[in-house]
Amino acid sequence: MTGQAMTAFQWPVRVYYEDTDSGGVVYYANYLRFMERARTEWLRSLGFEQDELIENQGVIFAVRSAQVDYLSPARFNDQLLVTSRVLKVGKASLSIAQQILKENKTICDAVIKIASLDAVTFRPVILPTELYKIVSK
Amino acid sequence: MTGQAMTAFQWPVRVYYEDTDSGGVVYYANYLRFMERARTEWLRSLGFEQDELIENQGVIFAVRSAQVDYLSPARFNDQLLVTSRVLKVGKASLSIAQQILKENKTICDAVIKIASLDAVTFRPVILPTELYKIVSK
Amino acid sequence: MTGQAMTAFQWPVRVYYEDTDSGGVVYYANYLRFMERARTEWLRSLGFEQDELIENQGVIFAVRSAQVDYLSPARFNDQLLVTSRVLKVGKASLSIAQQILKENKTICDAVIKIASLDAVTFRPVILPTELYKIVSK
Amino acid sequence: MTGQAMTAFQWPVRVYYEDTDSGGVVYYANYLRFMERARTEWLRSLGFEQDELIENQGVIFAVRSAQVDYLSPARFNDQLLVTSRVLKVGKASLSIAQQILKENKTICDAVIKIASLDAVTFRPVILPTELYKIVSK
Repeated sequence: MTGQAMTAFQWPVRVYYEDTDSGGVVYYANYLRFMERARTEWLRSLGFEQDELIENQGVIFAVRSAQVDYLSPARFNDQLLVTSRVLKVGKASLSIAQQILKENKTICDAVIKIASLDAVTFRPVILPTELYKIVSK
Repeated sequence: MTGQAMTAFQWPVRVYYEDTDSGGVVYYANYLRFMERARTEWLRSLGFEQDELIENQGVIFAVRSAQVDYLSPARFNDQLLVTSRVLKVGKASLSIAQQILKENKTICDAVIKIASLDAVTFRPVILPTELYKIVSK
Repeated sequence: MTGQAMTAFQWPVRVYYEDTDSGGVVYYANYLRFMERARTEWLRSLGFEQDELIENQGVIFAVRSAQVDYLSPARFNDQLLVTSRVLKVGKASLSIAQQILKENKTICDAVIKIASLDAVTFRPVILPTELYKIVSK
Repeated sequence: MTGQAMTAFQWPVRVYYEDTDSGGVVYYANYLRFMERARTEWLRSLGFEQDELIENQGVIFAVRSAQVDYLSPARFNDQLLVTSRVLKVGKASLSIAQQILKENKTICDAVIKIASLDAVTFRPVILPTELYKIVSK
């Protein structure tokens, strides 16, 4: 079991003009910004600040792949909820399931695979031990 | 056969500060902006202006799904090439294979599924006939 | 006196990777995104939702000018505070003083002039009466 | 005389969906992205690559102030022209006049003040000598 039973972390996101496009809806790339905010806040909630991970442990996270299904659009002023849940834990990677909810309905469904990299060489390194312990239990 | 034999359309993209993040590389969501630019220019090269499609035919394109593999990072000032190639043609959808190249090496590999929507109701509608003819041959 | 004595509205903004650039700091255009979020939330706090203003009153706000002084940089993970204070009220425009604070220090200082426009023709129209009453007292 | 007689450098920018917002026009912060692209290309046209300036001379440019007048909106698919012209040269700073043109009409008018900074300490340093020579003659 790798976190699947964990209750998903939730982070609220409000849609501003900057997020929308002239089609009247949120621009497709911007959902990835929302999801990264939620991942950053999820890590923070577990006690990990990414600037400190870089500085103190020389580890930076990078996205290896993103699979995103856009189910229905969000619009200006919408109040969204972005979830993060660990799907799979590797030695040097994490797969995170993320959903974006609007009024309790999933409007965007994604799996984001994160790699743990050496902050200087960008080569894969094992996940920070403390984080590995938390996400793999 | 649905376009697989077509030579891929290519569009150059220069990386500016706006595209990068403090990790020193292009922010992961911004590759989707590059890919949309290339799709827009690909459509333009075939004779389709998206603002005219909305105005004259009431059709707007929306991304239904994106599968993106990030293979290696791009950085400030990099000169990239973004390709677009039709992978599959549906009645009301198109799957497009897109790659981002840096010095002839693929650094990002994606499949983007586009839906053809009624510009007012956002319900699926068949692809504009002229476009369907071109991409399905 | 037009609002100068009003206590400035405050809105918190967290800096994420999306906001930074490879120089290691927040990209200069993104401070304008932060300021718009604060203006949107300031309007909301006064009871005005901009999507309803468009729909019900046919009024949209547009930025006419921005004077921005960048005093010191913000970085990834910084927790900022963005203020909004009405500086001047015209018949069809508002000048808003905005500051971005980091640990109680102003790092960005701006004056943003907003015009009230007809949402269809984009011609200037008088400010919504209820808003005018509030900001001009 | 500091460059005022120089013909303005021009850089074309196409408006994509990513640049617009649900008001149907280009989002106000994004004009600053267009202007930075033009400044980057202007520097390149003079022989200066900003990544090399950082690496070889330890100098990075930062925006100190921006005064932007938004005269009329740009929309999806518009083909714009962005100009850059040196207005004033200081020991450690440059003021650049920039305009954004749509069909030969100025739709955005700006003065951007750039500071030359030490890339590590972010303290002001004199402009790279070669650049100073070119822009001050």
